[in-house]
Amino acid sequence: MDRAEAEQRDAADPLFPLRDRFLLPDGLIYLDGNSLGALPAAVPERVARTVTEEWGVDLIRAWNARDWVGLPRRVGARIARLIGADPDSVMVCDSTSVNLFKLASAAIGMRPSRRKIVTDAGNFPTDLYILAGVAERHGLELVVAEPGDVLASIDGDSALVALTQVDYRTGDRYDMGIVTEAAHRAGALVLWDLAHSAGAFSVAVGDADLAVGCGYKYLNGGPGAPSFIYVAPHLQERFDNPIRGWFGHARPFAFDVEFEPVAGIDRTRVGTPHILSLAALDAALDAFEGVDMGAVTEKSQELTSLFMDLVESRLGRYLTIVTNGDPERRGSQVSLTHPQAFSIVSALIERGVIGDFREPDVARFGFAPLYVRHVDAYDAVEALVRVMSGREFEDPRHAVRRVVT
Amino acid sequence: MDRAEAEQRDAADPLFPLRDRFLLPDGLIYLDGNSLGALPAAVPERVARTVTEEWGVDLIRAWNARDWVGLPRRVGARIARLIGADPDSVMVCDSTSVNLFKLASAAIGMRPSRRKIVTDAGNFPTDLYILAGVAERHGLELVVAEPGDVLASIDGDSALVALTQVDYRTGDRYDMGIVTEAAHRAGALVLWDLAHSAGAFSVAVGDADLAVGCGYKYLNGGPGAPSFIYVAPHLQERFDNPIRGWFGHARPFAFDVEFEPVAGIDRTRVGTPHILSLAALDAALDAFEGVDMGAVTEKSQELTSLFMDLVESRLGRYLTIVTNGDPERRGSQVSLTHPQAFSIVSALIERGVIGDFREPDVARFGFAPLYVRHVDAYDAVEALVRVMSGREFEDPRHAVRRVVT
Repeated sequence: MDRAEAEQRDAADPLFPLRDRFLLPDGLIYLDGNSLGALPAAVPERVARTVTEEWGVDLIRAWNARDWVGLPRRVGARIARLIGADPDSVMVCDSTSVNLFKLASAAIGMRPSRRKIVTDAGNFPTDLYILAGVAERHGLELVVAEPGDVLASIDGDSALVALTQVDYRTGDRYDMGIVTEAAHRAGALVLWDLAHSAGAFSVAVGDADLAVGCGYKYLNGGPGAPSFIYVAPHLQERFDNPIRGWFGHARPFAFDVEFEPVAGIDRTRVGTPHILSLAALDAALDAFEGVDMGAVTEKSQELTSLFMDLVESRLGRYLTIVTNGDPERRGSQVSLTHPQAFSIVSALIERGVIGDFREPDVARFGFAPLYVRHVDAYDAVEALVRVMSGREFEDPRHAVRRVVT
Repeated sequence: MDRAEAEQRDAADPLFPLRDRFLLPDGLIYLDGNSLGALPAAVPERVARTVTEEWGVDLIRAWNARDWVGLPRRVGARIARLIGADPDSVMVCDSTSVNLFKLASAAIGMRPSRRKIVTDAGNFPTDLYILAGVAERHGLELVVAEPGDVLASIDGDSALVALTQVDYRTGDRYDMGIVTEAAHRAGALVLWDLAHSAGAFSVAVGDADLAVGCGYKYLNGGPGAPSFIYVAPHLQERFDNPIRGWFGHARPFAFDVEFEPVAGIDRTRVGTPHILSLAALDAALDAFEGVDMGAVTEKSQELTSLFMDLVESRLGRYLTIVTNGDPERRGSQVSLTHPQAFSIVSALIERGVIGDFREPDVARFGFAPLYVRHVDAYDAVEALVRVMSGREFEDPRHAVRRVVT
């Protein structure tokens, strides 16, 4: 495998033209779309229009004239296609953490006699914190299993099984169907965090009860983009939102004194939607228009395989690949471990290759299939070879910790 | 009083030049800043820069390089000045409804043996819904008093007194000091919703324990701008956030498995901040730079008095003014009632005067002191006289209800 071969793969890649739907800085190899997705080309103009025309000129009238009220649901319906969900079952609102809180609290209310929530130790910290908080407030036990022991930890006392499909550190991916089926067999509900899934490969929520996901990773909605929330159609009428805000009311603008939850997925809503952030996410989803998610999965697997093969053959003695070798068992991410992983990532950034570091020793590389090229994967390994062979990571500058790692 | 006199008052108004800090459509009289504030001139460029330079070029590095992590607190410190609070006691995050939920839940935890939350029937519906939900989940009683009976409803079993300072419908304003003192005398905590206060006149949180406010009304942060949350310094260490997200952790990027709340006001945070919306709010606050809030109060009282006097003298037989005649007992808003209030507001909008309608019969007019002129108040009454004398509100077009009223 040489660079020419990577170029040939790009030439043959049906998704290659999608890169033009993004504004990427020249010369930068961006492998951190799993933390903050790149800027889609449609966003700046849309946000500017929302600010100057909708807000600036229409002012309060825009709530009707521009249907700001319906925006969270319209954006949700666009995300629904990417996760194989019914368009009327996805809402965009609040942050992922707040949505996890709503879902976990509501799930417990649907299984009132059960005393356990099951999760895994590799779950993203905010998921663990939210779940632990919800469990504590309701007097339940949070069972934190090792990823391999999750299935064995589900029993007749489990109210909810809450997992992130793709492990943020290792990149390993659960088979959602298997876990969902096991949870249902035990009578438990299942909640999937799709933060590292939606937009990265083809997702099928299938029989899952509840799901949540991130707007700013592979969906490219911008820093702190609102999150999406999924409630299976048959559970929506039983969804009791623990945070009863006016946008979850049947008639928000009737200003009733008594709360009456609206029907359907709208009852996951709480407060006034963050219109500017939502407009950015809506425009960002233009990048997925007409895109076959099966082809996205295929490219994700090609890019990660290419990167893993090259790391293995050229750097296998120095770095450990922790991500699963089976493409069906990993997300669109490859994680390498090394005692100096932080400094290695820092040295790579100086070389124009952006990945990130996760405690304690993980160098993490995300491959967003819409804008990452095969040559990017190739060049990233080339840069990594130089960082390792030149021991650039030993430069003390690269040991300086920042606030966000 | 004629138009020339209104013009003279504008000429003598020390705040008149602040209008240039806003981008207002020509010919429009905008009296709905209490619902959605006008677009500040600094916002479009700042939002565009945040999108194209910070997100588009710096990408993930912007979290450090642009201190996105510190943005919610920096914006909070700017709002702190407007409400007379310690700069380290205000955070900007989530929606007003979500923040109310956090504050009310935490307050109850600080008064565990008490069984009541006291509010008033005029409180904004989302406040009533959130408080009722929190009370129900904790087995407390929500006492909904008439505004005049609030003080008498506070007793030794009251955990929390939660009120909105300015009534969204009538425009009447509580004396925060009197209620706060009465609550404290009874051993209760007090939570103020400053949605219609912050930015409209000089606010002093004083001895209040908790407060929340809206970013998109008189602070002009744009549709669905994040909300602000205040916790008195001496209570911050006892604030137990019911939604335990990673941004409320002592070390969010250490990715600890156990939740350890951060010290200070940061523990009110939950998920990843909505950076685009926050950047807009930050830029919007430039409009308050160097502005004496005492002068803002004075102008608020002048504008509302002018409007009320003219309505009384010219239309007193047709419309009822429900807002308090004492300038110290009202917000920056005047409310009129009429059985056809909806159609009257609609006919006014056609004449280029934007107010809004609130069920069942209220026509509501907000006077944002930074950009509303004395001639606007005068011209609005002129238009209202024509709507009433020409019975324009009887045109069936003006009876057509919209989604958002």
